[in-house]
Amino acid sequence: MHRTRVRVVEDALDANNTIAQANRADFDRASTRVVNFMSAPGAGKTSLLERVLPELAGIRVGVLEGDVQGSMDADRLASLHVPVTQLNTDAGFGGECHLDANMVRSALPSLPLDEIDLLVIENVGNLVCPAEFRVGEDVRVMVCSVAEGEDKPLKYPLMFRTCELVLISKIDLLPHLEFDVDKLLYNLDAVHPGVERMLVSARTGEGIGEWRDWLAAVVDRVEAPA
Amino acid sequence: MHRTRVRVVEDALDANNTIAQANRADFDRASTRVVNFMSAPGAGKTSLLERVLPELAGIRVGVLEGDVQGSMDADRLASLHVPVTQLNTDAGFGGECHLDANMVRSALPSLPLDEIDLLVIENVGNLVCPAEFRVGEDVRVMVCSVAEGEDKPLKYPLMFRTCELVLISKIDLLPHLEFDVDKLLYNLDAVHPGVERMLVSARTGEGIGEWRDWLAAVVDRVEAPA
Repeated sequence: MHRTRVRVVEDALDANNTIAQANRADFDRASTRVVNFMSAPGAGKTSLLERVLPELAGIRVGVLEGDVQGSMDADRLASLHVPVTQLNTDAGFGGECHLDANMVRSALPSLPLDEIDLLVIENVGNLVCPAEFRVGEDVRVMVCSVAEGEDKPLKYPLMFRTCELVLISKIDLLPHLEFDVDKLLYNLDAVHPGVERMLVSARTGEGIGEWRDWLAAVVDRVEAPA
Repeated sequence: MHRTRVRVVEDALDANNTIAQANRADFDRASTRVVNFMSAPGAGKTSLLERVLPELAGIRVGVLEGDVQGSMDADRLASLHVPVTQLNTDAGFGGECHLDANMVRSALPSLPLDEIDLLVIENVGNLVCPAEFRVGEDVRVMVCSVAEGEDKPLKYPLMFRTCELVLISKIDLLPHLEFDVDKLLYNLDAVHPGVERMLVSARTGEGIGEWRDWLAAVVDRVEAPA
């Protein structure tokens, strides 16, 4: 039974990768660079987008908002006057705990890709399964809030290992927590040595400029990395 | 394809429920009451257990610790001198984002059920899939940290809807957050009207006595609820 289960999972991931490549080809054709944006629930993804998107002057941004249910985050981002498409995983997708390539593909017709330089796909809040499913992105960015504790890289290693950038969020709370940033960074380097990381706060704006520059550099890439 | 997917999911849940009933029968035979303890990553489940378990005088407690990888939480709880069994979902279970009845069943031989009045199953940190898989528990308790935002019941309704008790944790952080407790409770009542809830802090001990009494009452139940 165990072997069957592994095979079923492998087949599903193979199928997912095939569709992810088709998504990627569509993004490349439109010269749209794509960020897969992931975190645990409540780490602050939407607040960080609210902060950084208005700073990306000259870059046409779009957002694909993934949630099990509801459109609260999409509603928040719509006020920034960027194209936002909501993708719910409960209607037709069985309440999945992650976005997969097929779900993203189903949303592509509603996105004006030719008018989007940078598409941010805000994934479902979850530190496990989103890391297993490529959706056609160029880069993966994850957020880890200092309220979550220093042990998270060791407990959810795949997520931390597959990202190009780790945003350590809510650093304005540090004075009020028993949280050791060095310990988090040590654990991070244990699972993904040297991965780029930034300390940020959506509330105070700390680190947002650095992150904006990083996103702008993603758009400036002539060739997308493999 | 959609219909096939739904059927596969339904079959998996049926199989899970059958095994969950077998687990429950074993727990009942040993007069062990079981709590399925769930939350997002970093909401503070282990810290809350470290606080409450020593308070449960006269009740023999055991813990089944679920994680994708590692045994950090089990190591923390072992210092409380209660039987702790670690269950990792990556070794042999494909890195699942939740515990299911079969995984719990595989751990039962390593638990001295006859010497345990209250078994706490600390689930994998995730607000989606753990809610779908019964493991044979009597009651479900979930933790939602005030650092996660007031919108969580609306975004992850199934988890909030299937619990008998919601612990609202890290309330010592309230003075440092823009968090509206009334708004959270309003959203909670929208998805699970009147569900029991407690405001707690593992750091200050606030609310821990109330939670201890609740757990003691679970043990005192003569008949387990359906």
